[in-house]
Parts: sequence; structure tokens; C-alpha cells
Amino acid sequence: MATTAEAGAASAQPNGAPSCKVVLAGSIAKKLLEEVKDGLKNLDKPPALYGYLANQDAAARMYADWTAKTCKENGFDFHLREVAREDLEDELRDANHNAAVDGMIVYYPVFDSTRDRTLQWTVSMYKDVEGLSPQLISNMYQNIRFLDPPANTHKSILPCTPLAIIKILEHLQIYNTFLDYGSRLFGRRVTVVNRSEVVGRPLAALLANDGAEVYSVDVTGVQQFSRGTGLRKQKHEVKEMEGWGLEQCLAVSEVIISGVPGEAFKVPTGMIREGAVCINFSSEKNFTPDVKEKASIYVPAIGKVTIVILLRNLLRIVQNRPQMQS
Amino acid sequence: MATTAEAGAASAQPNGAPSCKVVLAGSIAKKLLEEVKDGLKNLDKPPALYGYLANQDAAARMYADWTAKTCKENGFDFHLREVAREDLEDELRDANHNAAVDGMIVYYPVFDSTRDRTLQWTVSMYKDVEGLSPQLISNMYQNIRFLDPPANTHKSILPCTPLAIIKILEHLQIYNTFLDYGSRLFGRRVTVVNRSEVVGRPLAALLANDGAEVYSVDVTGVQQFSRGTGLRKQKHEVKEMEGWGLEQCLAVSEVIISGVPGEAFKVPTGMIREGAVCINFSSEKNFTPDVKEKASIYVPAIGKVTIVILLRNLLRIVQNRPQMQS
Repeated sequence: MATTAEAGAASAQPNGAPSCKVVLAGSIAKKLLEEVKDGLKNLDKPPALYGYLANQDAAARMYADWTAKTCKENGFDFHLREVAREDLEDELRDANHNAAVDGMIVYYPVFDSTRDRTLQWTVSMYKDVEGLSPQLISNMYQNIRFLDPPANTHKSILPCTPLAIIKILEHLQIYNTFLDYGSRLFGRRVTVVNRSEVVGRPLAALLANDGAEVYSVDVTGVQQFSRGTGLRKQKHEVKEMEGWGLEQCLAVSEVIISGVPGEAFKVPTGMIREGAVCINFSSEKNFTPDVKEKASIYVPAIGKVTIVILLRNLLRIVQNRPQMQS
Repeated sequence: MATTAEAGAASAQPNGAPSCKVVLAGSIAKKLLEEVKDGLKNLDKPPALYGYLANQDAAARMYADWTAKTCKENGFDFHLREVAREDLEDELRDANHNAAVDGMIVYYPVFDSTRDRTLQWTVSMYKDVEGLSPQLISNMYQNIRFLDPPANTHKSILPCTPLAIIKILEHLQIYNTFLDYGSRLFGRRVTVVNRSEVVGRPLAALLANDGAEVYSVDVTGVQQFSRGTGLRKQKHEVKEMEGWGLEQCLAVSEVIISGVPGEAFKVPTGMIREGAVCINFSSEKNFTPDVKEKASIYVPAIGKVTIVILLRNLLRIVQNRPQMQS
């Protein structure tokens, strides 16, 4: 009987092997890149991205080289400015008013202190491909999605890594397009391990604004981000989850997104829900190989998507601009 | 600040109103019917469905009239045979060998006893639009999806109501087409309230065979249907959930499907998970109106989809046949 069942069944995996789909960022990046290239076709000239390098950081230099390469390969102009860090603020201010500059990216850290925030605030929100301008960040947390209400034709720019993760979730059909735009994660429970200001917290806010119930986990504890019963709240609210730890979060989460730096932290596979979707955005692996025994989908890295989002943000900035000036 | 947020946000629902989508079966039936009509175009002649009425049951008569109307409206031939119940078995046996008869449906109850099962077993599996033949039922439980392994071009016929619910879940994008065929419910937890042999149990088995973790609830208790860790099992297994009741099932289920006859039973909205998908297949309402306060999607009835599935099964039978005989 068992033999007949196996022969007749159409399921892809052989009997005994787990049914996990490992999805590489490259395949998702490719699709997004095609959309970006389509957008480029309608422009008079390639968008010009200016990168500002004002440190001797090897990782920053590598990121700058990577930006240059990706821009070149995909029809964007890239100009690297190497600047003494004391001159950077003036340089950025000039670029804000220079029509030749479409988008700007600063390779942090510059002063490696809270002074770097002043630099972030100096970049014009209309040229900020990283989505770090105060108004853009405020829009994001407040669930204000457009720069031009009530027309709502120009989307506010979102930070690259959180948006990359959202695009990955869309690709994996975790966003349900049967539901209305803005509520497509309604009913989903997501654990985000990392609550940094750069990725973890904005990501938790974005997911909750789209309707998810998000458990944001870091060493200080667990916070729940959600829009309340029936999504009645227009933007997310945050609640401390007293007595909750990673175990409680993972037990109820269909999606687990982890980005803890370093080799020490691993999401314990034993705590993961059967059939969960697992995404790692740390440069190290936050999941152990046996995650494939339980997950339905595993995305081991996201970098290639993030860089496409950078270009996508630049394109959007250029598309938004003429109307913004009119 | 709140005013700006509301004006700028793109979310469809006004602040304060819950975000539930009520989906009527008619809209889903329409889409399926178009597929059926496309299939009809490739046939030489309209498929002929024979209905057998051997009782004085008003509901059965109504169902027969309804079948006649739906067939007529959609290009299928329908012939109603009114037969004395003692003659029905012979009548069915003749029809099995009558080339003019493409599909057969018996309006139960006939004897209203286990003797009715003999009638179900008499209808040829190659003409059984209801999917009640022993071989078809066995295929369903064993997760054998095709009649012609290893070619696997002719799908086994599934019972109408359970298949209607699956088609509804596909329409609502609860089936994730990013996952492989046969595992597209992996990671989903579904509660099915009703474990009848006609709908509840086959439905639980079908959902579990597609990868879901299913909690099957009736007055005798809760059973879990699943394919085990990583979907390693080729077909579902059933486990008694000692100490579990409806409350435990609902707390973890993203999808709730209920079909308890009568007005007495209601799924308690307070126990339903935020953002759950709720489907009622009882002729009475198993959910109270406040389900819309919490659900992301609510389907109040499914009858219109079920009748399209009947026609779809008939079409499939005709499409399967020539090759089956060769």
C-alpha cells in the first residue's frame, strides 16, 4: 500500500526528506532588478548617485566599491567623493543644491559617535537613498506612506535593509495580495530577533503597520508591535511582553527574521514552529543547518536584495522629483 | 499628528473600523465557472449528467432542481431519473454501461441507512461526479492524486464540498503557490469543526495531505491530522489530542472552517485568533456577526462554489475518459 501511495503521489520531495525550500537572495534580486531597469528606460539620463567616504574603514570602502560596481552594471552613474570628515557636512550641504546629484549615500561610520546623526540629518530627504532623514523615518514609524497627501502618488523612501526584507516576504507570498494594500500581513505572527535602530526596530514597525503581530526580541526582552484588534489603529503600538522570551515568540510565529551580529547567537531549531519561514539578515548565520528539517522556506542571506533596493530608492527619488518641484 | 497620519496613510479602512474582508461564494464560483466553460469548448458535445431521485425528500428534490438549473445555464445536459428505491441499484448498474451517461449523481438519502453505501459503491468510479466511490475515497485518504500512475495526467475525483473549500482557500491565497504543489499549506494551522464522513474528515485529510497541521474537532474530542516534522510522511497521520478542546485549537489556528448543522453551535469569537480566516460551510451560520471584528477574511457560505465543483468534476471525468479507455 505504501509503495502505491508513493508512486501515485505528486509531492516533489522523496519520502523521508524534509520539504524545505532554500531561497537565495540572488533569485529575488534579479526580479526586482528587472523592475528597476524598466523604470530606467523612461528617464532622459541615468540617475547619478554620489557616495561620500570620509573614513579609513575597510568595510565602508568595500561597500563603496560594491555600490560602484552595481551602479555600473545596471545603468546608474556613480561618483565616489573621498572627503576629510570635518568637511563632509559642507560637502553634503552643497550636494543638496547641486542639480547634478540625484541621490546621496554616506558610508558610515564617519565620527563613529552620535555626531554621525547630524550628517544623516544634513542629507536632503529628496536625495536620501538610504531613507535615514528624520522626516522619512518619522513617516515610516507613523505609517505615513506618501510624501504628497492627499494625492498619494509619491511614496516615502524606506530604509534599504528593512525594505529588502519586506520585498523578500512579498516574493515568498507571505504578503497576501488578496487582502487590501496596507493590511496584507493581517493574521501573520512574525518574530524579529534584533531591535537595532538601523534594521530591527524599523522592520518591526513596518511589518506591524502592514498588519502583522510582531514580536521584537533583543537582550533586554520582548516587545509586541501591532495595530490592535481588527487593525483598528492606523499605526502600530508597542507593548512590553513581560515574562516572554525567544521561546514564547518562536512557538507562535510563522515567520522568523533574525539579524544578530557575531557567531555566538543561533535560533534554536527545536523552538521553531513546524513550517515556519526563516530569514537571516546577519552577515553570520543565525540559523543552524538543521533549520531545513522544520522550516517551509529558508533564506540564508539577503545582501543582494538590499543593494537592488538602494538602486530602487534612487530611481524612486528621481521619479518623485519633477512633480515635487512643480 | 494623528490627523496627518490618517490623511497620509494608504490603508483602506477608516480609523476605528475593523479590517475584515467578507467574501461571498458567488465571486469565487464565477471565476471557477469560467475555467469550466473554457474546458467545455474543447468537447464535441455537452457532458450528460444523470441525476437519480428515489425518495420523497424535499431537500433532495430541491438539490435536483438546482442541479438541473445550473447544468442548463452552463451548457451541461441534465437528465433526472425518478426511480423506485428498490430499482435504483439496477438502474445505476445499467447507467455504468450506457455510453450516453457521462456522469451520475444520486440524491441521498435513499434508504437512509448503511444500505445507501451499497448504492455509492455501485456507481462506477469513472462516472462518479461526487467522488464517493471506494477507490476515489481511498485515493483521497492515501494522498494518491492521480488515476494513471506513473503518467499522472488524470486526477482522481475529489468529493465536492471538501474540494470547494480547498478551491476557496486557493482563491484566498492561503495556499502559497511559492511552495511546491502538494505542500502549499505547509506551516498553516487549520481548525475544522465537524468530522463527518461526508465533509469534515475528508477535508481534514486533504488539508493535511497538502501540508497543513489540522485540528479536527467534534463532540468526541480533537484529532490532529498532519504529515509530521518537515512533511516527511507521504500522507497524513492522525493523532488524538488528549485534553484539547475547541479553545486550544482556535488559539493556534490561522484558518477556521466550521460546518456544524443547526442553530445551536457558534464558534466563540473571543477564542478566535486576531486576523484568522473564517469559513462557514454549514447551512446555518456557525460564526456570530462580530467575527468581522477579528477575522481578516470571512466567508459566510460556500454552496455556490460546491455546485461549480460538481460541474468541474463532471468535466474532468469526460476529459479523463478517452485516455482511460485507450
